[in-house]
Amino acid sequence: MRAAQGTGFVAGNEYRGRGQAFRALDPATGDTTGPEFTTCEPDEVAEAAKLAWTAFETNRERPERWQAPLLREIASRLGDAREAVLATARAETGISSARLEGELARTRNQLLGFADVVEREAFGEPVHDEADPEATPPRPDLRRVLIPIGPVAVFGASNFPLAFSVAGGDTAAALAAGCPVLVKAHPSHPGTSELVGACVAEAVAACGLHPGTFALLQGAGNETGSALVTAPEVRAVGFTGSFGGGRALTALAAERPRPIPVFAEMGSLNPMFVTAAVARERLDSVVQGFVTSMTFGAGQLCTKPGVVLTTEGREFATRAAALLDEVEPGILLNQATKDAFEAGTRISGVEVLTKPCTETGEGLRAAPVLVLATLADLRREPALLEEHFGPFAVVVDLDSEDDFAEAASLLPGSLTATVHSEPEDHERLGPLVFELVELAGRIVHNGYPTGVSVSGAQTHGGPFPASSDSAHTSVGWTAIRRFQRPVTFQDVPETLLPPVLRTALLFKEEQ
Amino acid sequence: MRAAQGTGFVAGNEYRGRGQAFRALDPATGDTTGPEFTTCEPDEVAEAAKLAWTAFETNRERPERWQAPLLREIASRLGDAREAVLATARAETGISSARLEGELARTRNQLLGFADVVEREAFGEPVHDEADPEATPPRPDLRRVLIPIGPVAVFGASNFPLAFSVAGGDTAAALAAGCPVLVKAHPSHPGTSELVGACVAEAVAACGLHPGTFALLQGAGNETGSALVTAPEVRAVGFTGSFGGGRALTALAAERPRPIPVFAEMGSLNPMFVTAAVARERLDSVVQGFVTSMTFGAGQLCTKPGVVLTTEGREFATRAAALLDEVEPGILLNQATKDAFEAGTRISGVEVLTKPCTETGEGLRAAPVLVLATLADLRREPALLEEHFGPFAVVVDLDSEDDFAEAASLLPGSLTATVHSEPEDHERLGPLVFELVELAGRIVHNGYPTGVSVSGAQTHGGPFPASSDSAHTSVGWTAIRRFQRPVTFQDVPETLLPPVLRTALLFKEEQ
Repeated sequence: MRAAQGTGFVAGNEYRGRGQAFRALDPATGDTTGPEFTTCEPDEVAEAAKLAWTAFETNRERPERWQAPLLREIASRLGDAREAVLATARAETGISSARLEGELARTRNQLLGFADVVEREAFGEPVHDEADPEATPPRPDLRRVLIPIGPVAVFGASNFPLAFSVAGGDTAAALAAGCPVLVKAHPSHPGTSELVGACVAEAVAACGLHPGTFALLQGAGNETGSALVTAPEVRAVGFTGSFGGGRALTALAAERPRPIPVFAEMGSLNPMFVTAAVARERLDSVVQGFVTSMTFGAGQLCTKPGVVLTTEGREFATRAAALLDEVEPGILLNQATKDAFEAGTRISGVEVLTKPCTETGEGLRAAPVLVLATLADLRREPALLEEHFGPFAVVVDLDSEDDFAEAASLLPGSLTATVHSEPEDHERLGPLVFELVELAGRIVHNGYPTGVSVSGAQTHGGPFPASSDSAHTSVGWTAIRRFQRPVTFQDVPETLLPPVLRTALLFKEEQ
Repeated sequence: MRAAQGTGFVAGNEYRGRGQAFRALDPATGDTTGPEFTTCEPDEVAEAAKLAWTAFETNRERPERWQAPLLREIASRLGDAREAVLATARAETGISSARLEGELARTRNQLLGFADVVEREAFGEPVHDEADPEATPPRPDLRRVLIPIGPVAVFGASNFPLAFSVAGGDTAAALAAGCPVLVKAHPSHPGTSELVGACVAEAVAACGLHPGTFALLQGAGNETGSALVTAPEVRAVGFTGSFGGGRALTALAAERPRPIPVFAEMGSLNPMFVTAAVARERLDSVVQGFVTSMTFGAGQLCTKPGVVLTTEGREFATRAAALLDEVEPGILLNQATKDAFEAGTRISGVEVLTKPCTETGEGLRAAPVLVLATLADLRREPALLEEHFGPFAVVVDLDSEDDFAEAASLLPGSLTATVHSEPEDHERLGPLVFELVELAGRIVHNGYPTGVSVSGAQTHGGPFPASSDSAHTSVGWTAIRRFQRPVTFQDVPETLLPPVLRTALLFKEEQ
């Protein structure tokens, strides 16, 4: 079984960049781990992008739906590499083995699910309008199908080394669309990226696809990613990460001679509204569920519930703090996350209910922090309305449930919004649900926002600043749409179309 | 029957802005026509946008699919206002009565077609994944539906005073999505805009909808539109016009604290490839078709074939020039179009085959101009690769059909690409078709690009710079998607959802 050797992949081969060397850190100990990696310089990225374009041109001449076997082959190879991948990811991220096992299963199922989607009759959303020479004006024969947009740049996420990284959701969706993928590995887990990258590169070869179909580019700083986003051959960008990172990439993409879309998922506050009736009926259970959700993955999930709004704020926060004080300090992913957490969660003028924790043990750890605030604080202090990546949350103690709507109106766009309510509350909460629909891409009832099912009905995306484009999801089958564009064929005879485009001529649906 | 009185519409009432006065010009005579209009100042636009948000909040509490009767009511009132609308549009644009009649029919059919789409079971693309408690991890009940994005700003186009203006494609698609619409009237046809706006405002009232559902803002300069694009309540922009205009709006929208998408359709070169076999078989017929298409609407259509590529270039151009010399000078829409046409079509180093025309008659007229160029010219001269709005086209004389691919690679993104070929050509042309699919949103075979059917299979949009976002179309039923975003409801009970959102709970499809 392969162990990490300090490489990326270009043209199907192991590849070391000529730039700056770097190593991963084990956040559980603070020591370096794994081999030395090197950064891909801009000209090396440019070469990989050119190759991706060649692959795009080559693959589109294959028989249609070639993507499905590739996705299945990657899933199979990930299964074979399971042990090394999990051990390396554990060392590079400090994420628990149990969570990594779940994440690997999710990653493989995601690839298999996308493969099935590619083989559905409705793939590419074909529409056929037959010619109508009697119409005024006469209508030609029109066939519309979604085609792949071209090479896609994917940025690995620090907090999901598998499910949102090299063979994660963005890569799976882009490959499913038929797009070559150029991954910029996250520098916090280069070894995990290499092992997963090897599975993808080998799967590409095993399926007989052009080796430019996939590249894995290692890099310590921003220059590798910048070169990727500005490469003329790249047609779209998938990104999961910080607000600052997402905005920088969006600006870079907009300044290109030919602008391209950036699908950036930039983190989220994920408000949770709890009614007084719920507090009466089952406060302990909701507090327990909230604490579990808030501290899952040391609070480093983009769906972490970051703010609770309830008239029973003090009681909720007191009980939650008591539970949080018993939670072991969680391992943060890297030094930058730890620094940002420590700086960002010192917020003036709010009451900290969790016990101060000075001894977090070795490595990059942080104990949970819960603060109690008022609606007035929310109006006053912007830091309360920002995501703080890590085990931090705010409970807002409201005077009345009439304040739900105003509180919602203060909140920024989120991936999710959660309501805990009892049947007696429902009629009254209609207006709040409307506010929340304007605020978030997923509305959760009597549950918790962490845990994002990969399926056709999922939306993982929300109004700005949660996503750069709220018309799309980055999880679930419709995530493929980000990497497709429609083309209509007017009176084009089948013989004139190369194989993959004949899809447009095969369907029976009419409109 | 209403005659134009110099107003727009805000809050359901006739409305005159406090800003600069202006009048329309009859381009056929060069004289002013119709009453005086006044410009809406930024604070007046801001008020209209606030009202649109209130309408958005009010309308979403209505029973679902309320949009369909509204769209049908607008179509009906447009029919009643037919005579005044056509006469006013004729005076303000110089477009022929026959073309305006066709455009009105198209506009009405478009509204009726969108109404039907709203009533389809598949509207909103509902997907339901039932809960699966046995899955690892357990899956909640998930229901996904597309909801309206919020108030939409629509910019009227100079060249389609009906079909791409006040009640045109963008407005119909946005209303169909359930979004209030704020139209910035094109200052070249304010009277036409007023008459059509009256139909929409009256239809909104007749359907009992909130009066903020529609506003028509008149304005001579850029400030009205800028205020519209930067209004916090506006959630998306639909624009058809120049590259400069589209880019300015896109930049403005990206700089907002909360960026919004701009769906800009910015014009197009629309290449037409003609094989030698076609020239042998039916050159006269293709030349005639080309000349008709190129001069339709005085060449002021975004789908005008602007460049022909063929090994029979000189013969094609000579025969076309002979026909074009017989075509009467067409009326240009306004002074800015005439100035741009005269300046832009003086291109050095190419042969002009049409006769110089010094006497074009009164008003804003231009005679057709056809130039002959080589592949080397195309490489050298950027002006040959730009759209020149008006009756201008380039014929590129190629040495060999092996040059088709290189010629295609030089061309910018277009709305359409056309191929004229004979069966004997087909096998050889596969690679060209691939190039064209990367270049355009619609591929036309043995036809002409002007004339865009409004239907489900249509794509009117293409790679940059033809459109700002090639993932969408601005014509046809799927144009609605520009103004929708997905929301997923996780375990949300029906009683908690206000009526319009219960759509998400009604469908039977599974995924």
